[in-house]
Amino acid sequence: MLVNGKHYRTIWLKENDDSIVQIIDQRWLPHKFVIEDLKTVDDVAKAIKDMHVRGAGLIGAAAGYGMYLAALNGDDVREASGKLKATRPTAVNLAWACDRQLKAIDSSKDKIGTAKKTAKEIANDDAEFCRRIGENGAKIIEEISRRKNGETVNILTHCNAGWLAFVDYGSATAPIYSAHDRGIKIHVWVDETRPRNQGARLTAWELGQHGVPHTVIPDNVGGHLMQHGKVDMVIVGSDRTTRTGDVANKIGTYLKALAANDNNVPFYVALPSSSFDWIKRDGVKEIPIEERGGEEVRFIQGLHDGEIKKVLLTPEKSNTANYAFDVTPSRLVTGLITERGICDASEEGILELFPEHSKD
Amino acid sequence: MLVNGKHYRTIWLKENDDSIVQIIDQRWLPHKFVIEDLKTVDDVAKAIKDMHVRGAGLIGAAAGYGMYLAALNGDDVREASGKLKATRPTAVNLAWACDRQLKAIDSSKDKIGTAKKTAKEIANDDAEFCRRIGENGAKIIEEISRRKNGETVNILTHCNAGWLAFVDYGSATAPIYSAHDRGIKIHVWVDETRPRNQGARLTAWELGQHGVPHTVIPDNVGGHLMQHGKVDMVIVGSDRTTRTGDVANKIGTYLKALAANDNNVPFYVALPSSSFDWIKRDGVKEIPIEERGGEEVRFIQGLHDGEIKKVLLTPEKSNTANYAFDVTPSRLVTGLITERGICDASEEGILELFPEHSKD
Repeated sequence: MLVNGKHYRTIWLKENDDSIVQIIDQRWLPHKFVIEDLKTVDDVAKAIKDMHVRGAGLIGAAAGYGMYLAALNGDDVREASGKLKATRPTAVNLAWACDRQLKAIDSSKDKIGTAKKTAKEIANDDAEFCRRIGENGAKIIEEISRRKNGETVNILTHCNAGWLAFVDYGSATAPIYSAHDRGIKIHVWVDETRPRNQGARLTAWELGQHGVPHTVIPDNVGGHLMQHGKVDMVIVGSDRTTRTGDVANKIGTYLKALAANDNNVPFYVALPSSSFDWIKRDGVKEIPIEERGGEEVRFIQGLHDGEIKKVLLTPEKSNTANYAFDVTPSRLVTGLITERGICDASEEGILELFPEHSKD
Repeated sequence: MLVNGKHYRTIWLKENDDSIVQIIDQRWLPHKFVIEDLKTVDDVAKAIKDMHVRGAGLIGAAAGYGMYLAALNGDDVREASGKLKATRPTAVNLAWACDRQLKAIDSSKDKIGTAKKTAKEIANDDAEFCRRIGENGAKIIEEISRRKNGETVNILTHCNAGWLAFVDYGSATAPIYSAHDRGIKIHVWVDETRPRNQGARLTAWELGQHGVPHTVIPDNVGGHLMQHGKVDMVIVGSDRTTRTGDVANKIGTYLKALAANDNNVPFYVALPSSSFDWIKRDGVKEIPIEERGGEEVRFIQGLHDGEIKKVLLTPEKSNTANYAFDVTPSRLVTGLITERGICDASEEGILELFPEHSKD
């Protein structure tokens, strides 16, 4: 998507130097646009763990490139895979990308060439899947717009399931960009998404760069807006969705799903099929939820006098807790928007679109 | 309650100078403890509007003292009342305190003496009502503690309905302090409460000063905690409760009530009867919800290198919206904890405790 009018993806091989992977270091957005060079699998693991890159699709793509750098640098690729998988526990794309690389590398003689090709394929597939999610999801927005006689469609989203969370287009944002580009009048309520503020920092930034009207709101506001008819639909992404349709996504998603359900607002989850966990059946019980450091709650980063600074929010001695995700039970999900189409958030609905996983 | 071991209320007449009202200027907590002098009704109106003081009970008490300063300074008390009522639209205590003062002043010859006495009575009543709320609510905590065989009772609260929001004790915190002082093992999940962070700044600070174990969490976390059995009860305050039991409280309260309901966690609202609106019946439709400035969403204040600074969170050009309250329908409320006892959040339940309002 566009950054100051120029097209970017979130991860790519450096022009004229295939030994370097480049990323947008998202920690400094929206205030600074920084590109970072990654040269080793350890660089990639650190970039994932410390959230220079984040989001289900992008950490999958980053893991793919990390495996390529491991192969290129002559590292043990199994060890590299273990290292990458250990960086973040909730998103399933990490393991999916590493395993795809291992399988490709194992069955090839040109291990480096294969790893490079596979890394690019993982990234390209991610972008293409997101593009199709956009086409499929835009139909829902178009239908709401028609029912409202062309009045603005108000969409609420949580966290950043935008192109910054993938390689391009995004999952939750793909239908938004697609509808916007078709000339449908839309407005996006952007949850700021504490504690890391990915909505306020990233989603607002990328929507702004693309010219999509939006308003940043505290995470507490969505329920009130829905009670007063100010939200026509919710679209969020997913870090992992069980075969039964339970959705792990950024902490707070579950609360918005409850409010949507209480106010008859359609609640959609947009995800590429790489985010399905084909084994797990009970999301709340079975999906591991990452606990991150308390300093992400205690300190908030922002711009002060042109410099990025962190300020302490809580009393010095207060404890904090930082659960990164929650699980929204499938009963609260209106539908899943995937690269193959839209389906019910149920095993039956999902397998109708992805019958090859019936026996998983 | 205690601040560094010394007992304070949130508002009082200056020692040896009855022409000055003193408050804790809460904007600088938890990092700085600042006492401010108020000499005119305009000072008081500004302190309420700009949230040097906030919270249902305290702004009622502040309005009471503001009316006294108006009388003392020879201002038109009706004009003063209008000024004070206009500062914040949601809390009902403001109007209640101004009207009580007007009635008292009108029927008295010693207008200044009466206004001073009434201001003190309003403050003393508030403190006494909160103390009784503590006694009544502590029984619920005690009962849960008994059922858990003395294991720690985990209580979630939103915003600051602590002593800082009243004159003393608090509403939601009063049962917590009372139970803690009786030796019941408790732990409080403190919602940080965006955008003004009253939980992270004020509730955490006052619980810490009183030695109550607590953990600050982003507002997004409560649902996840409840899904996993980590919350035994929720207690929040109320800025206005209809005669039918609908509860206006800090934005985001409704989302926690939905989660509590979805996970069979008891959801209690603690309020002195001064927070009842005896006229309104449909909270969602009828209670006016204050919209505050967007800069409260865009900028966050905290401590950096020993100084209190504000940092910009969002992109420069992004819009923001800032609704200060939402309304939790009575169907999601387990019970109301008042100074007279605990009742159902229904007209029948409320009037059983407050029969004198049957004909209102």
